Amino acid sequence: MNGKKRIVSGMRPTGPLHLGNLLGALSNWVEMQKEYDCFFFIADWHALTSNYEDTSAVSDYVRQMMIDWLSVGLSDEKSTLFVQSHIKEHAELFLILSMITPVPWLERNPTYKDQIVQIENKDLSTFGFLGYPVLQAADIIMYKAYGVPVGLDQVPHVEITREIARRFNFLYGNIFPEPEAILTKTPKILGTDRRKMSKSYNNAIFLSDSPDRIRSTVAKMITDPQRARRSDPGNPDVCNVFEFHKIYTDAETVDKISHACRNAEIGCVECKGIMAENLIKALEPIRNKREHYEARPKLVDDIITDGCNRARKVAKQTMKKVRSSIKI
Amino acid sequence: MNGKKRIVSGMRPTGPLHLGNLLGALSNWVEMQKEYDCFFFIADWHALTSNYEDTSAVSDYVRQMMIDWLSVGLSDEKSTLFVQSHIKEHAELFLILSMITPVPWLERNPTYKDQIVQIENKDLSTFGFLGYPVLQAADIIMYKAYGVPVGLDQVPHVEITREIARRFNFLYGNIFPEPEAILTKTPKILGTDRRKMSKSYNNAIFLSDSPDRIRSTVAKMITDPQRARRSDPGNPDVCNVFEFHKIYTDAETVDKISHACRNAEIGCVECKGIMAENLIKALEPIRNKREHYEARPKLVDDIITDGCNRARKVAKQTMKKVRSSIKI
Repeated sequence: MNGKKRIVSGMRPTGPLHLGNLLGALSNWVEMQKEYDCFFFIADWHALTSNYEDTSAVSDYVRQMMIDWLSVGLSDEKSTLFVQSHIKEHAELFLILSMITPVPWLERNPTYKDQIVQIENKDLSTFGFLGYPVLQAADIIMYKAYGVPVGLDQVPHVEITREIARRFNFLYGNIFPEPEAILTKTPKILGTDRRKMSKSYNNAIFLSDSPDRIRSTVAKMITDPQRARRSDPGNPDVCNVFEFHKIYTDAETVDKISHACRNAEIGCVECKGIMAENLIKALEPIRNKREHYEARPKLVDDIITDGCNRARKVAKQTMKKVRSSIKI
Repeated sequence: MNGKKRIVSGMRPTGPLHLGNLLGALSNWVEMQKEYDCFFFIADWHALTSNYEDTSAVSDYVRQMMIDWLSVGLSDEKSTLFVQSHIKEHAELFLILSMITPVPWLERNPTYKDQIVQIENKDLSTFGFLGYPVLQAADIIMYKAYGVPVGLDQVPHVEITREIARRFNFLYGNIFPEPEAILTKTPKILGTDRRKMSKSYNNAIFLSDSPDRIRSTVAKMITDPQRARRSDPGNPDVCNVFEFHKIYTDAETVDKISHACRNAEIGCVECKGIMAENLIKALEPIRNKREHYEARPKLVDDIITDGCNRARKVAKQTMKKVRSSIKI
């Protein structure tokens, strides 16, 4: 597309998106649309790796995710927005790449090792979960991506993708570029309880939250744990609410709040109130766009169909080349 | 199809078929066409599990295998003869079944354990090779097979297929029958060197061999190793050539040869000569049919296309049901 370099990234539809997703990924994606030819996909097959036991919500999550994406400013005109499982070619490439990927590469994958240890209440030791990076490699090289915007924790996955691409090229001829990991700086905000913001921790502020829900969620946020009383001075440097202020409140007010907090001139309740209103205001355009799309289900359907058609066109070309390279 | 029970089986296209394949599987398949609605497929994606490093011959092997099949009496009218990789739905079902198959089921698979140990000069520890039984399960349950004709060594694979089908049904609703392993008696013939007949051992008599090649191959067959001289009595019970006689020579002559061998009244050269001519005669209809199909490439193309279309129709129906069951 106009000589722009192509990037590919995906998100698993595991529930409504929250501020962590917005600041950690989506805001970057929105920015990247200016510079790159972007392929963004909703990774519903990937959602099965950890959620195969209850898939009842996945199709609704897919739809809600597309609405979230459009609401934050991903453009169905500038970018190719699509749903993984609608492009069957991903499954075929996954199968083919399976044949050339050594099991030890997957067993060494840090995400695999971590999750097996961490998530004890789910049965993750499935063949599909082990092969997560193989499917991810298929997703990425299918579109001959120049790069993949990722967080630091995802870098090993991109590394496996590069290795798989290299191995394919070595065995069957040079058809896939090795994608770069594009690391992007993201502001560090935490959930209301100071853990990583996550739907499953019940500590998230969702993009689709009403102003009232935002107010009540912000009211519950943990601030400087050392500040027990209103009359104690606080330390904004360790306060999660202050991190939010830095993003959603104007610089002058941020300075004032910092000073007032350190001198016990402002209490957490008041401080949170200011932040909540600024946050509500900042999210207003997103809420408005969400309403727009929610009122137009046919439009969302059409956007999904159109994005999938465009992705499929590229995927079909790639698979034609893959099949002629491996001669099957 | 007319209320017949359906069976599914496949063969990897790793080279021209030989007598071992005919007697061990194909002859049974031909017979089974009377009683069953048969789906037989050429497992070209499976050929990648052990041969991913050189795939240059696979597409030619696929074609030759279809000609072999037709020549021995598999009927493109009675049965559905197709090529696995032409039915992309197998890849999709493989991906989905991957997500629900525990890795330990695959690590316990005896074929996997055996081959990892046996075949030392090939790098088999790929993700795809580990997942061989998952793809096989997809191949079989895709057509809701009642049964799978197999040799004893393949029974554990069918068992994994049954377990995967059961697990799918448990998680997402009862849509797949659990296929039975249909064990069939087969005459036990060995290669010319008394090892298992196999292309890679260079001890095979191929269905496509010319009469002259059959004569020279039979001439090299190892007989009773204890019979060093023409004047020594032989023991047909341990003679591989005699096993061939039992299949290709009339009962009366077999008795005579047995008696003569035990009394050193017939030499191995003469005995082999008789067997070779009977074998050549028995294979003549196969050779003739092969010539027929080799002279008509367009006909073979059409048969493949037609079989694939019929298989795809069933596969599409199955996948529609699978997708609505898993809601993705």
